[in-house]
Amino acid sequence: MRNIKLIIQYDGTKYRGWQKLGDSDKTIQGKLEDVLSKMTNEKIELIGSGRTDAGVHAFKQVANFHTESKMSEEDMLDYLYRYLPQDIVVTEVVEVDERFHSRYHVKGKKYLYRIWNAKRHNPFLRKYCTHVPEPLDIDLMRKAAEYLVGEHDFSSFTSLKSKNKSKVREIFSIEIKNDNELVEIMFHGDGFLYNMARIMAGTLIEVGAGRMDADSIPEILARKDRSLAGPKAPCSGLILYDVEY
Amino acid sequence: MRNIKLIIQYDGTKYRGWQKLGDSDKTIQGKLEDVLSKMTNEKIELIGSGRTDAGVHAFKQVANFHTESKMSEEDMLDYLYRYLPQDIVVTEVVEVDERFHSRYHVKGKKYLYRIWNAKRHNPFLRKYCTHVPEPLDIDLMRKAAEYLVGEHDFSSFTSLKSKNKSKVREIFSIEIKNDNELVEIMFHGDGFLYNMARIMAGTLIEVGAGRMDADSIPEILARKDRSLAGPKAPCSGLILYDVEY
Repeated sequence: MRNIKLIIQYDGTKYRGWQKLGDSDKTIQGKLEDVLSKMTNEKIELIGSGRTDAGVHAFKQVANFHTESKMSEEDMLDYLYRYLPQDIVVTEVVEVDERFHSRYHVKGKKYLYRIWNAKRHNPFLRKYCTHVPEPLDIDLMRKAAEYLVGEHDFSSFTSLKSKNKSKVREIFSIEIKNDNELVEIMFHGDGFLYNMARIMAGTLIEVGAGRMDADSIPEILARKDRSLAGPKAPCSGLILYDVEY
Repeated sequence: MRNIKLIIQYDGTKYRGWQKLGDSDKTIQGKLEDVLSKMTNEKIELIGSGRTDAGVHAFKQVANFHTESKMSEEDMLDYLYRYLPQDIVVTEVVEVDERFHSRYHVKGKKYLYRIWNAKRHNPFLRKYCTHVPEPLDIDLMRKAAEYLVGEHDFSSFTSLKSKNKSKVREIFSIEIKNDNELVEIMFHGDGFLYNMARIMAGTLIEVGAGRMDADSIPEILARKDRSLAGPKAPCSGLILYDVEY
């Protein structure tokens, strides 16, 4: 059996997220498995590095599957480009060691959260940014972000639905860039709990808008209470930016 | 009567262009007139700086209308932002001299044509760029563009449907920027014939891809024969970038 790794870009606007549900056509994984199964004449099960929610995008998602197909990497790339819908593009196909596992072997991930910070939304970026009309104080957001960096129990920053046993994760860095109306927050960590990137972004937006105190973050972390952190920021601003192995 | 000028941004993907047709809901002008008429309780006729084709975008379209409404500019701006669909945003409302006319008084226009020049398309830019898979020689495109600059009869660069009497226009400049996969062509001129920006872009793409000779442009202009220029480039790459008075 060959083990094939894919690098995938997608515009998640029209999908119910990565994870396959009953109606496979509406998820990224389902759509990919359909095309891969036709390509190989096998029933392909695709292992993703992790889920992304409905409406969340990916610059670089990683997945792998096992196959007995003898098709070349280049031919697979061409086939996938031809038969996938326009909002999903496989940018790399590489045969990897049989032991490689897209989810278990993740060492780090980057999530980018993009905000259009102006009184009115931008018609071109509305699906790829979150619109925040209140002026944001970027320095306060950076101050709050510093408290989130490091190894913490992120129970306050994950949805109650989360079933992960340990809520401890390490955030390596949070960088906030501001170019006129566009504010970009890059989260880099060893892993992210369910909804964690969106809740961190939502909390930083609350701080930037002056509705939460930057210095309240340490206590929010310590209390392990989801109700203390900010709201989950909208899906449209979130992009799975990179997966590291 | 007051004369009100609007600055409008739109994502043209879902529309049949600027110009009102029978089904007003599917054109930018129709959509704006509907909302303006409700706002003022009058039958508003909106004068645009010019048409844009189906699927073409605008960073800055200009239009004006006459009204007896006493509503403030700021209240109009808020009303329009609230009731227009998300892909049309009025960014400025200004009361102007009664003689101002959005179309007759145009002194210059800028059109931006955007190309994603890579083997595979980009899922995030596919609606706002044209995908050209063949490598483009930017220097050859710049050479061809120089021949288009100046005052010329652009009969070879307009669709046969064009009913403008004079086909003479002045192109002030054509600037081509190249940032990795993104190629941007900015056309600046005193006016553009029907489909002229798209046919110039299509011709420059042919030159860049090596299918036409940059030095053939002077003869194409001189022959006044539409069949000699390149194809009309796709609508998705074209953006009405600015209108000058």
